[in-house]
Amino acid sequence: MSLKNTFIAIDWGTSHLRAYLCNTYSDKRFELIAQRDGPGVIKGKKTFSQIMEQAIAPWAHEYGTPAVLMAGQITSSIGWIETPYMKCPVNPEKLLSSALKQNSKQYAITALPGAQCVLHNTMLDVMRGEELQILGFLKQNPAYSQGKVLLCLPGTHTKWVLLEDGLIVCFKTAMTGEFYDLLCHQSVLIANDCQGGEFDWQAYEQGCNLTLGSNSGNLAHGIFSVRTRQLSKELDSVQAKAYLSGVLIGSDVRAARYATEWQLVPGSKVVVIGTEQLNRCFATALSHVGVQCDTFSVHTATLSGFNYLHHQQIASQSPL
Amino acid sequence: MSLKNTFIAIDWGTSHLRAYLCNTYSDKRFELIAQRDGPGVIKGKKTFSQIMEQAIAPWAHEYGTPAVLMAGQITSSIGWIETPYMKCPVNPEKLLSSALKQNSKQYAITALPGAQCVLHNTMLDVMRGEELQILGFLKQNPAYSQGKVLLCLPGTHTKWVLLEDGLIVCFKTAMTGEFYDLLCHQSVLIANDCQGGEFDWQAYEQGCNLTLGSNSGNLAHGIFSVRTRQLSKELDSVQAKAYLSGVLIGSDVRAARYATEWQLVPGSKVVVIGTEQLNRCFATALSHVGVQCDTFSVHTATLSGFNYLHHQQIASQSPL
Repeated sequence: MSLKNTFIAIDWGTSHLRAYLCNTYSDKRFELIAQRDGPGVIKGKKTFSQIMEQAIAPWAHEYGTPAVLMAGQITSSIGWIETPYMKCPVNPEKLLSSALKQNSKQYAITALPGAQCVLHNTMLDVMRGEELQILGFLKQNPAYSQGKVLLCLPGTHTKWVLLEDGLIVCFKTAMTGEFYDLLCHQSVLIANDCQGGEFDWQAYEQGCNLTLGSNSGNLAHGIFSVRTRQLSKELDSVQAKAYLSGVLIGSDVRAARYATEWQLVPGSKVVVIGTEQLNRCFATALSHVGVQCDTFSVHTATLSGFNYLHHQQIASQSPL
Repeated sequence: MSLKNTFIAIDWGTSHLRAYLCNTYSDKRFELIAQRDGPGVIKGKKTFSQIMEQAIAPWAHEYGTPAVLMAGQITSSIGWIETPYMKCPVNPEKLLSSALKQNSKQYAITALPGAQCVLHNTMLDVMRGEELQILGFLKQNPAYSQGKVLLCLPGTHTKWVLLEDGLIVCFKTAMTGEFYDLLCHQSVLIANDCQGGEFDWQAYEQGCNLTLGSNSGNLAHGIFSVRTRQLSKELDSVQAKAYLSGVLIGSDVRAARYATEWQLVPGSKVVVIGTEQLNRCFATALSHVGVQCDTFSVHTATLSGFNYLHHQQIASQSPL
C-alpha cells in the first residue's frame, strides 16, 4: 500500500472533531484503519492547527503524513479555512473544484466547500458537510442518482435535501437536534439531574402525534406539555426526554411534509441518512404520515464521500 | 399609618426575586415605598430563607416586620413553600383560600397558590404568578370583569388566558421568552459577542411575517433564516435578534389565533399585560392579523394584586 492510498478524513463540526485514517482501494472501496476524536469548532481552547495536530499526530510514526481532507463547520466563517458555498444545483462529484488547499505543519490539507440554495420564499439556506455525505451515499447506492429523491439527514440540524438525477437541487434546515440539546439541558422542561435511561418509544410517538397531527400551533403552544405531563405524573423525566424528542421531530417532519419545494404525500418515500437511533426516530415519525423510508448509515456515507474525493485527487495526480 | 397597612410583596420567579415594600389605602389604592431585587429560584446559592432575609431585612429598622405575601415559582415544586394549583374556573379574588401560611424568622409569610386547567386536547396547563397579575389587573380595570376577555401575558413564558365574567376559564402556555433567551445566548443563530443596540422594528416585523403568514412549518424550518440572513448580509447581529424575536412571537400569536379554546378573529380584541417593550411586540404582531390590543403594565398589575389580597387579609382580621 503506497502512502498515496492512505488518507486522513476530518469531519470537524460545531461540537466534535472526528478524524479517520483510511486506505482507499477504488472510488467506492475503502478501509477504516483508525479513528480519533477532538473538540469541535466552538469548543477548542487551542488553535485549530494544534487541535488537528493533536488528533492525527499519533498516526505519523507508522503512516507518515498522508493527505488530509476536511469538511464541516471548520470550513465556515467561524472555522479555520473558510471555503465558498457552491450554488445549487450542485453536483457533489465536483466538490474538489471549489476546495481550498492549505499546508499546516507537514500536512497538505484540502478543505471542502459547502453548498447553498435559495428557497421558494427567497430565503437562503446553507450546509457544510452534508453535501459530502450525499456524495458518499450516492457512490455506495448509485440507484438513487436517477430521478427525484428526497433525502433527510438528521443531526444537530436536520437537512431535507431534494436530489434530481444526482444533483442537489435545494434543501431546508431545521434546528431540531440543537433545540433538543438546549431544551434537555437548560430549560424548565427536563430536570437537571435527569438520569439516562432506555429510550421510551411510546412516549416518543405521543410527542410525534402532538405536532404531526395539528394544522398549526402545537409546537409553540404544545411543547410546555413536556413539563405538565411530568407534573401530572403521566411521564417520568426519562420518558419526558423521549416525548420532547417526538414533539420536535414531529414538527420537523410536518414542516417537510408541507414544504412547497417537493411533494411528500402518503405513499412517497424518503431516504434517511443518520445514526441508527435518529434513523429510527425519523422513520417512525414519517410512517405516521404514510411515508416509507430507506435508512442508511451517516458514518459510512461520510467516509465514502471522503474516499471518493481522495481517489479523485490521486487519480488526477497519477502519471499516465 | 399602622404596621398593618404596610406589607411586603415578593414576586419570586425562576430567574429573579423582586421584593416590594408597600402601603395599602384600600383594596384598589396602594403606594410603592421601596423595591429590592435578589436571585431567582434556580439561581440562589443560599437557602430561600436567607435570600428573603437579605432582600427585605434592610426595611426592618424603619418598618418592623410587615406581613409578607409571596407568589411565583417560589411556591412550586422546585421552590420553597409548595402551594396547590387551584382548578379552573378560578376566581382570582379567592386566591387566599388556597394560600399557605408559614413563619420564617420574624416574618409571617402568605404563599399564594397557582392555577391549573385542562385544555381541549386533554393536556394540563399550569401558571404561578399570572393569576395574581390578572387579579390586580381586574381590580384596576373592573370593566374587563364582564363577558369573555382574552388576555395575553408575555414574559419568560407567554400565558394566553380566557376570562369569563372575571373567572379564569382556561389558558395556554408558550415558552417564547425562554426560547428567545436560549437561542440568543447559546445557539448558532446569534454570535456570542453580539452587542446590545436599538431594537430594529422593521427586522422584528419581517420575523413576525415569516411565522404569522404560513399555514405550517415556518417555525421549524424558518428559524434557521436568522443565521442565513446574516450570512447574506441582509441583517447584522443586532437586527438578527429582533428578527428572531419576531419569528418566535409570530409563531406564538399564530398558535393563539388558531387555538380551539377561543375565537381570535380579525376585529376581536386582546388585553396584553406585560412590559412596555413586550406589549409593543405583541400588539404589533396581533395588529398584523387584524386584532386590536389594550395594553397594561404588568408591574402595576402585580402590585395591585398583592395589595388587594393584603387588604382582604387585614379586613378579615379587623375587630367589628
